[in-house]
Amino acid sequence: MNILVLNCGSSSIKYQLFNIEHKTVLAKGIVEKIGLKGSFMKFEKPDGTKVKLEGEVIDHRVGIEYILGVLISKKHGCIDSLSEIDAVGHRVVHGGERFRESALITEETIRDVKACIPLAPIHNPANLSGIQAMQTLLPLVPQVAVFDTAFHQTMPEHAYMYAIPYSLYTKYGIRRYGFHGTSHYYVARRACEILNVDMGTKKIITCHLGNGSSMAAILNGHSIDTSMGVTPVEGLIMGTRAGDTDLGIMTFVVEQEELSIKVADTLFNKHSGMLGITGISSDMREIEKAAEEGHERAILGLAMYRYRIKKYIGSYIAALGGLDMLIFTGGIGENDWKTREACCNHLECMGIEFDPERNKGVRGQEKVLSKPSSRVTVMTVPTNEELIIAEHTQRIVDVVEQ
Amino acid sequence: MNILVLNCGSSSIKYQLFNIEHKTVLAKGIVEKIGLKGSFMKFEKPDGTKVKLEGEVIDHRVGIEYILGVLISKKHGCIDSLSEIDAVGHRVVHGGERFRESALITEETIRDVKACIPLAPIHNPANLSGIQAMQTLLPLVPQVAVFDTAFHQTMPEHAYMYAIPYSLYTKYGIRRYGFHGTSHYYVARRACEILNVDMGTKKIITCHLGNGSSMAAILNGHSIDTSMGVTPVEGLIMGTRAGDTDLGIMTFVVEQEELSIKVADTLFNKHSGMLGITGISSDMREIEKAAEEGHERAILGLAMYRYRIKKYIGSYIAALGGLDMLIFTGGIGENDWKTREACCNHLECMGIEFDPERNKGVRGQEKVLSKPSSRVTVMTVPTNEELIIAEHTQRIVDVVEQ
Repeated sequence: MNILVLNCGSSSIKYQLFNIEHKTVLAKGIVEKIGLKGSFMKFEKPDGTKVKLEGEVIDHRVGIEYILGVLISKKHGCIDSLSEIDAVGHRVVHGGERFRESALITEETIRDVKACIPLAPIHNPANLSGIQAMQTLLPLVPQVAVFDTAFHQTMPEHAYMYAIPYSLYTKYGIRRYGFHGTSHYYVARRACEILNVDMGTKKIITCHLGNGSSMAAILNGHSIDTSMGVTPVEGLIMGTRAGDTDLGIMTFVVEQEELSIKVADTLFNKHSGMLGITGISSDMREIEKAAEEGHERAILGLAMYRYRIKKYIGSYIAALGGLDMLIFTGGIGENDWKTREACCNHLECMGIEFDPERNKGVRGQEKVLSKPSSRVTVMTVPTNEELIIAEHTQRIVDVVEQ
Repeated sequence: MNILVLNCGSSSIKYQLFNIEHKTVLAKGIVEKIGLKGSFMKFEKPDGTKVKLEGEVIDHRVGIEYILGVLISKKHGCIDSLSEIDAVGHRVVHGGERFRESALITEETIRDVKACIPLAPIHNPANLSGIQAMQTLLPLVPQVAVFDTAFHQTMPEHAYMYAIPYSLYTKYGIRRYGFHGTSHYYVARRACEILNVDMGTKKIITCHLGNGSSMAAILNGHSIDTSMGVTPVEGLIMGTRAGDTDLGIMTFVVEQEELSIKVADTLFNKHSGMLGITGISSDMREIEKAAEEGHERAILGLAMYRYRIKKYIGSYIAALGGLDMLIFTGGIGENDWKTREACCNHLECMGIEFDPERNKGVRGQEKVLSKPSSRVTVMTVPTNEELIIAEHTQRIVDVVEQ
């Protein structure tokens, strides 16, 4: 069974074509700058050569047509005809409280994804564009929606509710949802596979550290807390998002700088985080380079970023009542060994005996980073959200076709 | 030496007259509803009888005149003349970065307290009214300002900075300041006295839980982190304040409900917290009563309140790299044993062996609540902010007069 996995952003589409039986990736790439000047498509061929094709892509439908065209092209393709695509899995960012699981795309599913637009005004419309374009282009192929929020729907009420007027929950659904659910789930499951332990009996903290960053506390296989909230601005410090911040700052800045709330929101989502503190970049590699050269605000930014993660580790150990595994993933979590070390040191009081020697230089590997005597196993596990989307798609399509 | 301690709110003045040598409280009371209808004064006489005097109090100056009149009155007083007041100590809420210590009140001090008004627009003007009224009424008596923020000025930069554009710090001083500093300091010091240990070598977490609530992480005698931020809305859930909340909720509510930012700010400060969740009350005693009767939102509110504290305990243990003492104070911290138990259970993984039997029913006492085998000593210590204000006032006046 070949499954095409699509992740449609507001101006980009990432894709991967999986063969599920052989667990192989037949093709992967990205279309960027959709609807903007200079749109292009990039992909890697099975032999490792990288290809970049330019061409105007005015909307998601054109982008997907482009992808399908490449997949069946003589020169760059991997399948002979579109009939070899058996199913399509879509990443959908916000499933609200409606979606606790992945779902076959039907008119009802589309209606419910639309109902979540107020909670994800940028992401859900882009995801829907991809779904609707695909329905037009491959009307007979079953499609599945896999939600970033679904894995966290197991959080207990005391973890997901905010201490604000209750009516804001009943009226608008304002509560903690969390994101990166497929990534948190994948790395926790994969780590249990590697260690050959039962996820259903373990206390796990997962740190998905990338340009967007979040953490999750996973008890016996279920997410019981996560750092992103009703929006992705809450929690850890990110590339350009502020993370946890005194609400009073919003009031202060709107009043003193005479900003509209929209501009203030952009300020805390696009101009804050590592970019805001350091004034250099939202890219951790550039910040680390600057810090090594003695740039004071780069040094400060790194210290803040790591301190925030360390505090979340402590708070989630308290929430879980202990810890068995601590897992790092995402661009920063997989590759930035200095950050991992700084987040894990001096936590022996919580059973974490980190091994700086094992950790040093580890990039993009599945590896244990703690000492053999450590009560908590610390690991890196490269994430694979697309695999989870493909698996869920297969499972749901199999059920439907039976 | 007799020291009058004043805590001027926007419509109230609390006072205590201390004799420092004898460590006795000669008089204490409160003037309420200043500038409002039905103002009155309440105080307790040395023999325990409670007195309430009505009478219009149009401003802080009239309120302080009233207090001074009662202190020297034949019927209710405790001193023969105002010359027996040797110094006045004022609680001042916000000292910004200027005040790392208590300060003698001079023209310069007043100027600097005024400069902090944008950071505490309700509290600092009230504190200043009290200072200026006292300067008029007792012009020859030295006065001292003791700041709620000063104890937390030892926080490292990575703990007090927010991940927002750096210019908001340099331009407006937006950073974490924290409050309740004299309370956190007092209970940590008192606990070390009781246990006969050196505060300079200990890792301590203090939980000041009242209508306003905050926690502090204290390393070797210095505050290294605290839960309130640039304003008191951040951190724990409080009577009517939301505590930690996704910034995106502010945007959502302002847009969807078409509120001004001022109204939204009031919503999160005055109509949120325990009142907002439960819809019943901001008073923990009433909420616990309702919870016992099965009120679902009261039960939820209590679970949220306690879970948030537990997560902060974990995060501060991570920040401190361990823990020696965990101290509860404030109206809820001193009296609400169920909350203390719920915050401390299942934390054996962090060295906290709480003893539910010792804890049960403890109210307003200095008492150890952990098991003898516990690595962490858990205690209740009733707070005494006024004593710290009196001590600092004495110390500064002594230096000035030498």
